[in-house]
Amino acid sequence: MKAPKDYRIGTIGSHSALQIFKGAHDEGFPTTAICRRGKESLYTKYYASLVDKSYVLGSYAEYPTIEKQLVKENTILVPHGSFVAHLGLELNSRIKAMYFGNKSILDWESDRFKQREWMEKAGLRLPRQFSDSEQIDRPVIVKMFGAAGGKGYFFCKDPEDFEEQKSKVAGHEYVIQEYIIGNTVYIHYFYSPLDNSLEIMSIDRRYETNVDSLGRMPLRNQRGMYIEPSFVVIGNSPLVLRESMLQEAYEMGERVVAASKKFAGPKGLFGPFCLETVVTPQLEFYLIEISARIVAGTNLFVEGSPYADLRYDVPMSTGRRIALEIKRAVRQERLEEVLG
Amino acid sequence: MKAPKDYRIGTIGSHSALQIFKGAHDEGFPTTAICRRGKESLYTKYYASLVDKSYVLGSYAEYPTIEKQLVKENTILVPHGSFVAHLGLELNSRIKAMYFGNKSILDWESDRFKQREWMEKAGLRLPRQFSDSEQIDRPVIVKMFGAAGGKGYFFCKDPEDFEEQKSKVAGHEYVIQEYIIGNTVYIHYFYSPLDNSLEIMSIDRRYETNVDSLGRMPLRNQRGMYIEPSFVVIGNSPLVLRESMLQEAYEMGERVVAASKKFAGPKGLFGPFCLETVVTPQLEFYLIEISARIVAGTNLFVEGSPYADLRYDVPMSTGRRIALEIKRAVRQERLEEVLG
Amino acid sequence: MKAPKDYRIGTIGSHSALQIFKGAHDEGFPTTAICRRGKESLYTKYYASLVDKSYVLGSYAEYPTIEKQLVKENTILVPHGSFVAHLGLELNSRIKAMYFGNKSILDWESDRFKQREWMEKAGLRLPRQFSDSEQIDRPVIVKMFGAAGGKGYFFCKDPEDFEEQKSKVAGHEYVIQEYIIGNTVYIHYFYSPLDNSLEIMSIDRRYETNVDSLGRMPLRNQRGMYIEPSFVVIGNSPLVLRESMLQEAYEMGERVVAASKKFAGPKGLFGPFCLETVVTPQLEFYLIEISARIVAGTNLFVEGSPYADLRYDVPMSTGRRIALEIKRAVRQERLEEVLG
Repeated sequence: MKAPKDYRIGTIGSHSALQIFKGAHDEGFPTTAICRRGKESLYTKYYASLVDKSYVLGSYAEYPTIEKQLVKENTILVPHGSFVAHLGLELNSRIKAMYFGNKSILDWESDRFKQREWMEKAGLRLPRQFSDSEQIDRPVIVKMFGAAGGKGYFFCKDPEDFEEQKSKVAGHEYVIQEYIIGNTVYIHYFYSPLDNSLEIMSIDRRYETNVDSLGRMPLRNQRGMYIEPSFVVIGNSPLVLRESMLQEAYEMGERVVAASKKFAGPKGLFGPFCLETVVTPQLEFYLIEISARIVAGTNLFVEGSPYADLRYDVPMSTGRRIALEIKRAVRQERLEEVLG
Repeated sequence: MKAPKDYRIGTIGSHSALQIFKGAHDEGFPTTAICRRGKESLYTKYYASLVDKSYVLGSYAEYPTIEKQLVKENTILVPHGSFVAHLGLELNSRIKAMYFGNKSILDWESDRFKQREWMEKAGLRLPRQFSDSEQIDRPVIVKMFGAAGGKGYFFCKDPEDFEEQKSKVAGHEYVIQEYIIGNTVYIHYFYSPLDNSLEIMSIDRRYETNVDSLGRMPLRNQRGMYIEPSFVVIGNSPLVLRESMLQEAYEMGERVVAASKKFAGPKGLFGPFCLETVVTPQLEFYLIEISARIVAGTNLFVEGSPYADLRYDVPMSTGRRIALEIKRAVRQERLEEVLG
Repeated sequence: MKAPKDYRIGTIGSHSALQIFKGAHDEGFPTTAICRRGKESLYTKYYASLVDKSYVLGSYAEYPTIEKQLVKENTILVPHGSFVAHLGLELNSRIKAMYFGNKSILDWESDRFKQREWMEKAGLRLPRQFSDSEQIDRPVIVKMFGAAGGKGYFFCKDPEDFEEQKSKVAGHEYVIQEYIIGNTVYIHYFYSPLDNSLEIMSIDRRYETNVDSLGRMPLRNQRGMYIEPSFVVIGNSPLVLRESMLQEAYEMGERVVAASKKFAGPKGLFGPFCLETVVTPQLEFYLIEISARIVAGTNLFVEGSPYADLRYDVPMSTGRRIALEIKRAVRQERLEEVLG
């Protein structure tokens, strides 16, 4: 019977790769880093002890040149939040190496219209969307498609304000979304297809430049200065949620998983995912976005989180939880159930 | 001689119950959850491994129907920050089951005038209070009585501003309190009546919707919008305090405990409590409120905190610290000293 | 051969002393606290178990009266962020007891002009400085020399604004520095002279009163109020950095260490240090300041951090990392290499 040591866990050197490698080691898997030249030293030098083997490519487009070797080494690829962004949707869909997670969910995650449909199917509370800027009757946020890490977002108050700023999205697809005034809460889940059970792994809030620095400037100092607000994510801070809201957080996660099974085959969404929410003073969750993979906020919790610690006797990061799921699948000879 | 396994630790399923149950297990106690129908699945499904027995009630008013059973099972109830809010002050005062903490402190905690008297007796620095809105000569915050989790608070600048907003508190009791401009710091203590010693367990800051999201909106976007600020607590973030302020934090805690012994019998305040402070640029602590029980901010520290870790070789949450105190009391045959 | 127990690790009771003592114990060293009367109880009462021996002085100027004893006891002093502020630069330079770190780096840290030169030598991106207030052509922050913990800083928009506020720095030396709009990120490093290798130990953001409370006041409430912004550090919160920026963070640290070797002898900067940065929406790091010793933000990570946990199997605080370096130096008979 095969054991973890007969496989390798691999991913692209970025985003949450260190956590994934650490988790793989904790569960007994050797690791493989796929890096872009110039970006490899984090994995081959500073955290070399976490990386057993590395491939350094001139560009990620060269991925096919190493795939045969990855397959030969029984590498299971773990996609993370910037895995597809780096590899490209097309190349990602043609991966022949073993792949943790459901590849067909990606179309639904990356296309804002499909994602909206998914969220609606799940029956969660969503910000209103405006198909026509003339209809803007409340504060909105305009989001360019494919904007990564919060770049290309802007605030807008009314149709006139949109007119003034619309050059920012000229030539791009975008959505005009109601701006929900409330606190952001990012909930990290893990759905196990082996046990058919959902866990909340951890919760974070993002640290976005420059919007998270604006509050430190008093009114007096902002006056007369024109500061373009931006939402570029550069880090994350830990958070716990009011316990009386936690059951609803679980139920939201379950509905998102259940809805995914309607369009992405019986497997649906599994493994790690994140619901990006805003909570209003009326204690209502608004679902802003679904991330269908491990998110960077989990990097806070390499040695466990307040939620994982309630459930596990060992420090359980999301990276380690992935490796644990693969290990269980290997031992139960159900590996194909966690690959997609 | 009795052991932890001869008792059960029980509480109402809400607020910090998961932490209390985890801590009870860590110290060897079986656990009992008292839940309201529709709110039980967090305890009976998602974290079922932490809950050995559960009672699901149609409403908390049905508590008396299960009390005989709780008593028979040697259940020690641990009140948390929303325990009394759920059960009601009157029903809480008639509890016959074993109860960790001093019940007579509750009147002093729940009545804002009595609490003010307590804080004055302790000799700590307090925000000014205005008995007459005409006297408002600085920014104030108006707090409705019984406002839970920061609902029913509003800012006010002067008597005219109060007049404009006073309909918000019409028909309610309220206090008008100086708004101290500075950073909030919530300090979590544990006072052991067995050892007569005080510990700082952890420190947090709250995450309040919508005030903690306002800073992310630039001046330009707030202008022309009327946003009603609100202070509804939905979570907590970890914090450490400048080490040179820590001794004063300890001394404040000791004074609050000492003052409580003047009015609440020789036992006074014991077990977990929290001082909610604001720290000004002059490094002065202002005491805003006392919470006489475990607060939700401790949920961050299920596996210990920077302060608990200085003192304990095992991960010591406040929930576990409660169970440890009960265990010590059982072993020393001094259980009555921690019950009230 | 000597062992950790043949030495003592000592420091001044303040700043990060608790963490340093805990780390020393974890690595087998007895500890010595040097306290000022009135400030000793944190070390001799509340955390007495971390302190094996304490000296309580009327003022730190009395340090020379205990030095003979410290030397006799083989005490290795560990300077922290307020060690020099308490002892004074002059007295610090004459310490005869063993001293962890390079004393000659202090001049370069404490003198803003020299520190600027150091940062320039390291080739990092720096905020512009204005030698003449007439040249102010963008938002600036004016920093008084020797301002500790963010006191004596103020914002300024243009030459006229400077004129209005300049009385605040009358009679003091100051710098006028471009105010970089972006998020603050404090990166905690440890450079080992024994291994010639650099580690990121942890990352934090500061909690500054009152600027970190301003964002909670809506525009409506700030209007008509004059709030003097201040930057007094009272605590710290944990942070992780976007993984794709981590390699650059390492490279910045290496350049700062390399540059230090050009002016502070072959040893250069070693042990713990911190780079205080601001990250813009263009994902550019601006280096604001170098702290050449352990910073208070590391107090968050008594039991490890997301970064230390990737590297160590035991909880590794910066305080413990210092003790570990000393222990290794003792065992390798290279102690003089970590003393300065």
